[in-house]
Amino acid sequence: MQQKRIRDFGVKIGKLETGQNNSITDVVGVSVGHVTLSEGNCQTGVTAIIPHEGNTFMEKLIASSYVINGFGKTMGTIQMKELGVLETPIILTNTLSIGTASDALMAYMLERNPEIGRTTGTVNPIVGECNDMLLNDVRAQFIEKHHVVEALQNAGKHVIEGSVGAGTGMLCYSLKGGIGTASRCFSIDQQMYTIGILVLSNFGILSDLQINGRAIGQELKEALLKSWEEKDKGSVMIIVATDLPVSERQLNRIIKRSVLGLSRTGSFITHGSGEVVIGFSTATKIPHFKPKHITTIPTIHEEDLDLAFRAVGEATEEAVLNSLVTASHVSGRDGNERPAFKDLLEEFNIQLA
Amino acid sequence: MQQKRIRDFGVKIGKLETGQNNSITDVVGVSVGHVTLSEGNCQTGVTAIIPHEGNTFMEKLIASSYVINGFGKTMGTIQMKELGVLETPIILTNTLSIGTASDALMAYMLERNPEIGRTTGTVNPIVGECNDMLLNDVRAQFIEKHHVVEALQNAGKHVIEGSVGAGTGMLCYSLKGGIGTASRCFSIDQQMYTIGILVLSNFGILSDLQINGRAIGQELKEALLKSWEEKDKGSVMIIVATDLPVSERQLNRIIKRSVLGLSRTGSFITHGSGEVVIGFSTATKIPHFKPKHITTIPTIHEEDLDLAFRAVGEATEEAVLNSLVTASHVSGRDGNERPAFKDLLEEFNIQLA
Amino acid sequence: MQQKRIRDFGVKIGKLETGQNNSITDVVGVSVGHVTLSEGNCQTGVTAIIPHEGNTFMEKLIASSYVINGFGKTMGTIQMKELGVLETPIILTNTLSIGTASDALMAYMLERNPEIGRTTGTVNPIVGECNDMLLNDVRAQFIEKHHVVEALQNAGKHVIEGSVGAGTGMLCYSLKGGIGTASRCFSIDQQMYTIGILVLSNFGILSDLQINGRAIGQELKEALLKSWEEKDKGSVMIIVATDLPVSERQLNRIIKRSVLGLSRTGSFITHGSGEVVIGFSTATKIPHFKPKHITTIPTIHEEDLDLAFRAVGEATEEAVLNSLVTASHVSGRDGNERPAFKDLLEEFNIQLA
Amino acid sequence: MQQKRIRDFGVKIGKLETGQNNSITDVVGVSVGHVTLSEGNCQTGVTAIIPHEGNTFMEKLIASSYVINGFGKTMGTIQMKELGVLETPIILTNTLSIGTASDALMAYMLERNPEIGRTTGTVNPIVGECNDMLLNDVRAQFIEKHHVVEALQNAGKHVIEGSVGAGTGMLCYSLKGGIGTASRCFSIDQQMYTIGILVLSNFGILSDLQINGRAIGQELKEALLKSWEEKDKGSVMIIVATDLPVSERQLNRIIKRSVLGLSRTGSFITHGSGEVVIGFSTATKIPHFKPKHITTIPTIHEEDLDLAFRAVGEATEEAVLNSLVTASHVSGRDGNERPAFKDLLEEFNIQLA
Repeated sequence: MQQKRIRDFGVKIGKLETGQNNSITDVVGVSVGHVTLSEGNCQTGVTAIIPHEGNTFMEKLIASSYVINGFGKTMGTIQMKELGVLETPIILTNTLSIGTASDALMAYMLERNPEIGRTTGTVNPIVGECNDMLLNDVRAQFIEKHHVVEALQNAGKHVIEGSVGAGTGMLCYSLKGGIGTASRCFSIDQQMYTIGILVLSNFGILSDLQINGRAIGQELKEALLKSWEEKDKGSVMIIVATDLPVSERQLNRIIKRSVLGLSRTGSFITHGSGEVVIGFSTATKIPHFKPKHITTIPTIHEEDLDLAFRAVGEATEEAVLNSLVTASHVSGRDGNERPAFKDLLEEFNIQLA
Repeated sequence: MQQKRIRDFGVKIGKLETGQNNSITDVVGVSVGHVTLSEGNCQTGVTAIIPHEGNTFMEKLIASSYVINGFGKTMGTIQMKELGVLETPIILTNTLSIGTASDALMAYMLERNPEIGRTTGTVNPIVGECNDMLLNDVRAQFIEKHHVVEALQNAGKHVIEGSVGAGTGMLCYSLKGGIGTASRCFSIDQQMYTIGILVLSNFGILSDLQINGRAIGQELKEALLKSWEEKDKGSVMIIVATDLPVSERQLNRIIKRSVLGLSRTGSFITHGSGEVVIGFSTATKIPHFKPKHITTIPTIHEEDLDLAFRAVGEATEEAVLNSLVTASHVSGRDGNERPAFKDLLEEFNIQLA
Repeated sequence: MQQKRIRDFGVKIGKLETGQNNSITDVVGVSVGHVTLSEGNCQTGVTAIIPHEGNTFMEKLIASSYVINGFGKTMGTIQMKELGVLETPIILTNTLSIGTASDALMAYMLERNPEIGRTTGTVNPIVGECNDMLLNDVRAQFIEKHHVVEALQNAGKHVIEGSVGAGTGMLCYSLKGGIGTASRCFSIDQQMYTIGILVLSNFGILSDLQINGRAIGQELKEALLKSWEEKDKGSVMIIVATDLPVSERQLNRIIKRSVLGLSRTGSFITHGSGEVVIGFSTATKIPHFKPKHITTIPTIHEEDLDLAFRAVGEATEEAVLNSLVTASHVSGRDGNERPAFKDLLEEFNIQLA
Repeated sequence: MQQKRIRDFGVKIGKLETGQNNSITDVVGVSVGHVTLSEGNCQTGVTAIIPHEGNTFMEKLIASSYVINGFGKTMGTIQMKELGVLETPIILTNTLSIGTASDALMAYMLERNPEIGRTTGTVNPIVGECNDMLLNDVRAQFIEKHHVVEALQNAGKHVIEGSVGAGTGMLCYSLKGGIGTASRCFSIDQQMYTIGILVLSNFGILSDLQINGRAIGQELKEALLKSWEEKDKGSVMIIVATDLPVSERQLNRIIKRSVLGLSRTGSFITHGSGEVVIGFSTATKIPHFKPKHITTIPTIHEEDLDLAFRAVGEATEEAVLNSLVTASHVSGRDGNERPAFKDLLEEFNIQLA
């Protein structure tokens, strides 16, 4: 089943071209898998992003993280900052399940790398989270280790969006949110490059929502008899993948621009909303074991970063809108529910373009 | 002469109330002064922000800086980060004049504080800059020490905006930019607080300019026969003043949200545009010399920061637009020129609201 | 049984006075508990530091972290940096058990705080680690959730040192290491303050070990027929507790000085050794729920920090030496073993003073 | 005239080999020049470090800075952090002369690069400082622009140490300090690499001074009838040069280890002592203008950094001791004076080895 995405509503974000599928998986080698738990009080799940097809521990990728608002529990960023690499898949889940997710991801890595903890050191699992406590009984810690493994095993090129995986119980601008993705392509010196974004959206209040400058959130709020707005206790995780040859410093400059995309959907980056970005580049593989020769890192000239900056901003904005527009109505914990944006558009006969 | 500001064009930014003058000087104690040098190849100047009416060295203010994009030469942030205080006025000028400005500000502080360098240590001057090389012969280093002193002496509550002071030769979205200001008020527990912003705008390309979600830059670009767009070598300095009782950590969280305001005017924070924020709170005076008793710092609860976040975003957005809409046409170095936004609105008969 | 500590060998570190027990628990309210797993290939454990006697989630402490070398997986520092508080006990364990430890600590906090995930947000567990893979089968992930709860339940004022708790399988300067503690007292304006340190030592190579400037490691290396030196894959966790009234910025300045203590025992902070410091002050309780009145934070004058800097350096140095000198010989995974420093002193008849 | 350095007193620091001249100029291409102003109340100067023999603006070097204690006014680190490069020589001088030094360095760069401010952007001058207010009338701001140019013109391979250049009026452990240098060599995969250090020492109190673990400061304090100890209002600037192929992240890891060298001479990094490190690698030239092809950056494997870490620690320690042992007695402002360490050794007939 093809999901109706923001462009299918006639809304075009930004000026750059999208990748083939307008998805993080347009970056060659990247795949995404979900496990969705949706029944009654249990509205949560796991999303796995696999950064390349090889052994990520043996062939690491240059990586960087950026904290937009640190009210969050993302694991693994200390080592990523020190060493500048990603050496595991990235797991997204709910806030109170990061321990389990980390444990499961470690076991997964141990199984594939018998050297870890024997002839070489340990491994640095990357786990991000948002808090789905409104729709999900987060205290029940529903995620089990096997869910993480299944999400990894489910990984493929087609990314399902909306109320799925880690996004099952998440909100976006007081409506249902969750997983969204988008990508941008651009050329430097006749070479095409791609930047792909995946978001786990769980932030914002309805009246702030904007689409391409239109205050659609305010319109909806006025149309609705009942307001779903409350204090934002959300978060957003933003995963940035690219095939651009960049240093970790350059990559950090790139991923910082994701805040521009958030902003243009209306966010004020509220206190309670932990917002963390993790980025990686597939252009260079950094060997775990010392090679015979010095490694050379190809890097673009600093002046060429502007295209990447624009690409990240645009793709983040579009990924957030995709998460919003693809999400389905969910009724969860204690009867709490959040409507789907797409249902409201239909109900109030609103055209986005 | 009253300048026509963005609200006078019928454009209202955001949801919060403005302060009395919609100016950084709505924060009690803050004053602003300019020196403008505008003749032929010399299109530059100095803007001084005085943070309170007393002796800033003896009674320091809690302060914080935030680097949005570090392609800039702002001085004094290392010590501000370590000690968390502002102990001088803030001087803004062109990039190649920061040495002179720093020297002048030091002399100004030495004159008022005979203890410096004798019975106590030194002083940390804060100087920010943007690059006005298109309209100004920046290589000529026109700023002299006395200009800095005059800007400090000129300081008052009424802030002239546009092509004035440090903003004389600056650009904004490929048009004339410069100085802009705005403020927001809000109450916490029945107490009113104010956040004021002053920007020195010098960034962006025309086709990106947005006003309240409208792509006015693209409209103008199509209307104009000649495009002024080129690679952005600009910058923006953002000064945030508030009377909110906050720790330096809380203040840092607040000033980081200024990027949201930039973003909503259309910026992608390009590589070549150094963007630096300096913030201070007038709520607590930190004594230079050790007092007899332990200092207590009043601080609001973290949950109350959301209003401040929104205020900074809105006021930054409006300050940028004020800098753009008040600026006048300037013809400068080698006949380079940039039109005034207000003149183009008139020429093409464009209504903003 | 009283353990023989470095002072019992006649070695006095630094100039300041120690606290009553020369222990992190000299800071009123702080307690420490261990669970030790020591049998065959299983040489690991858990150490819990409880920061005050009340409900840490409801009454948070000002806190800060500092990364000396980020080759480590400590959890919880993103939020600690953003919000400046500690809201859980601190758990130390082996590298591959941080997921389990985090999960257990979350469950512990959920049980004591029914509001979490219902009427308020989530909780930020702090878990630190070192890699005990030489003596412990770290791949087996021996730590179970109940071990964490037991360590918390075991917490008391008397801190056992050496091969105990999280330190069971750790190394220090190629010998057995583990848990060590120390404290310093000093007065400011007639008020006595205490800084206490607890280390989980797992770093260094024998030939670098120094005690009060004496190259004892080199001496031992020459005396031994067999060298235990290898590439350092270690780490050190340093916990700093104090009752000094400080802001999170000041606390960060203080805890950064712990590197001086490491250095003076001979460390070069090797690549593979993740070294992370977590500090907290018991002087102010920050309420979780917004109080009726503005919170005031008492803070000492910046000039008075020098005593605290010296105290942290000295106590860290002494805590490392205590961890080394109290540790017992351990034979663990695959017959790997490390001698006790104290046994070598006896074997080679070396006097430390 | 050959100066007597710490090794000439029989003191050998660390385990690694020194470079040919045990100097920062052992790194090929690096040169150092001084201007010394020493008469009456004027006891100050300028030291220039030129990083390579070409045009530094056109061929930039990978660079990084690290703030050990940010009570300092070093200029240029914001841009260095963002862009990862050094594009000017480094100037050291007294605290209140950084404005003049910056201005002079800019003019020097403008003269050599007519493109700056015309066809390309601006330039980021790097200026570091310490506060020589005890011996020098720092308020008089004696440094003039031509002094900076002269220091650059004086640059050569032989580095004079002690009371010279920017070090003329500086203190070290309450005695005369100033300029010191040292270097270390080591091989990775049969290739020799060099790390060189230059310090401007101006920190510490006598009783803390240690040489190779010996508490010589305490000995001297007891021998002296009069104590020169007072509150430390000092600083230290540490310049690290290397020919190691490293990324800016790796370089940052390396230069952070300089604190180990400071620590081993006895420092507690006091509040009032601004301590800043600037490092650069000559291994790769980064072109200012975009080249036709993608730049490749050779970088060593992370595991090989340990030798560099040790080298920086050792060379920093030795450079500090060289600054101390080569400095001459200075009598300066208002008759303030500080003895030379070497004179005290002679007076009290103390042997260092």
